[in-house]
Amino acid sequence: MEDIVTLHEGGTPLLRDPDGRDLFFKYEGVNPTGSFKDRGTAIEISRAKELGVQNVACATTGNMGASVSAYCAVAKMNAHIFTTKFAEPAKIRQIKAYGASVTVVPGTYDDALAESKKTRDEKGYYLMGDYPLRGEGQKSVAFEIADQLNWGVPDNVIVPIGNGTLAWATYKAFRELETVGLTNKMPRIIGVQARGCNPVYNSFIHNLDYIVPLKKTNTIASAINCNNPVDGLETLTAIRESNGLCIQLSDEEILRAKAEMGKLGIYAEVSGAASYGAYKKLKLGGKTVCVVTGHGLKDSK
Amino acid sequence: MEDIVTLHEGGTPLLRDPDGRDLFFKYEGVNPTGSFKDRGTAIEISRAKELGVQNVACATTGNMGASVSAYCAVAKMNAHIFTTKFAEPAKIRQIKAYGASVTVVPGTYDDALAESKKTRDEKGYYLMGDYPLRGEGQKSVAFEIADQLNWGVPDNVIVPIGNGTLAWATYKAFRELETVGLTNKMPRIIGVQARGCNPVYNSFIHNLDYIVPLKKTNTIASAINCNNPVDGLETLTAIRESNGLCIQLSDEEILRAKAEMGKLGIYAEVSGAASYGAYKKLKLGGKTVCVVTGHGLKDSK
Repeated sequence: MEDIVTLHEGGTPLLRDPDGRDLFFKYEGVNPTGSFKDRGTAIEISRAKELGVQNVACATTGNMGASVSAYCAVAKMNAHIFTTKFAEPAKIRQIKAYGASVTVVPGTYDDALAESKKTRDEKGYYLMGDYPLRGEGQKSVAFEIADQLNWGVPDNVIVPIGNGTLAWATYKAFRELETVGLTNKMPRIIGVQARGCNPVYNSFIHNLDYIVPLKKTNTIASAINCNNPVDGLETLTAIRESNGLCIQLSDEEILRAKAEMGKLGIYAEVSGAASYGAYKKLKLGGKTVCVVTGHGLKDSK
Repeated sequence: MEDIVTLHEGGTPLLRDPDGRDLFFKYEGVNPTGSFKDRGTAIEISRAKELGVQNVACATTGNMGASVSAYCAVAKMNAHIFTTKFAEPAKIRQIKAYGASVTVVPGTYDDALAESKKTRDEKGYYLMGDYPLRGEGQKSVAFEIADQLNWGVPDNVIVPIGNGTLAWATYKAFRELETVGLTNKMPRIIGVQARGCNPVYNSFIHNLDYIVPLKKTNTIASAINCNNPVDGLETLTAIRESNGLCIQLSDEEILRAKAEMGKLGIYAEVSGAASYGAYKKLKLGGKTVCVVTGHGLKDSK
């Protein structure tokens, strides 16, 4: 118990659509640092503490860095955060508030990741992004959804895709529930990307079994601006095995979704609104859960 | 049930001090709109819905306006928010995101309150700030603290004072727990104000039984910048009856507390850090709970 590092992440509300559609919002913005990342971070940092780690390195579009920095503060570790110029200023402020050091790396998320890996190789820093472990933490979002629906399974779960960890963790969790007999069906996992950063979408549409990294990206949805998703292939598997879909949205479609969600009482960061944008565009039937990955207060404008 | 308007407020973590002091942080920043206000708003808006209200008016330093706007969005009511130039831009954005109208009134909080009251008198708008009702909602923060301490009662509960609703609601809740026998003692209620907006502190120090409204205020702690606290007298009673204290802090002391809290993994908005600033200054013995009233993401800088 002593080694558990927690800020009481998870336990987020599953909000019913006020407009009466068969639609729910899993509002991850009310996690301690304002995004779904805290679920995975709690596991990763607890393990790091157990190992006696002192220095942690992490590449981020912003949310993961904020999350890792907060849990490092609790665990009395040093957090070294690598990000890009696309990160929201509000997130950079948040990371620094937790006492972490921040390096803004020129280029893409992949470049920031490469810098963080250098500190592992050269200085022995513990690298966040042991994605299997992180995924194990992220699974709780799906366990909660099933629980909150009284062990029912929605027909569709829509998830924004950055690195893709959340999508495959959600898939894995529902699969486990089915395996142990707590549920008796699978939801379709529906992944959403921004048109300006769509490597998983490209592979889905062209039926590839690999991811083609993008050299340049261009989207206002900074939290899902990952040009070479670490868990891209796992996400493709989750989507395909669940008979799901991957779609892309323009920035305008995502911003419209964010604005409409506000009128439903749900303040989402831009990327977090992509799930609802996909719901609107796909005109899905059946019971649908949109995972809202981050709080609107994360946006700087 | 149908008339209950909720975004699943409350149920916030009681975080143990990572430095091992007999100190806890009640982290209200993870309420749906990022502040403690949601607890009271859920009750006020549920009652308004029951009454068939269509238009709601609300004066705010920022957090209450955001909260009221969100719940109005869920309940399909129109929110008319009146604030001052001191409100954080991040809060104004949030209020507008929920579809509310915002009027920035010249002058103090009291002036914004007067404007909101005009819409009640002239247009029949339903005025938020039926403080007894709001206080009933706010009580849940104290019920949770007692529950989370296994029905123990801390020696001190430290609360920032804006309008003062939270302070007296906390007192009332602990008194009720004692009355029904769930607990057997009272905590000291310790109120904190900013030196630049200290009407309750002034009355406490000079042993007055009235509040002298301030004509001008000057503090960076915008969420507690209430020159004429609506519940000032009730707060004085709560402090006195509980053998508590009221103290004032300089902006520098509050900012230092905010910075130190970040290093403990707790990101507080400036005003929300005042409770910890008071803890540091008072060098209190005994078990202490600092109520952290709003999320650090609420600050615009």
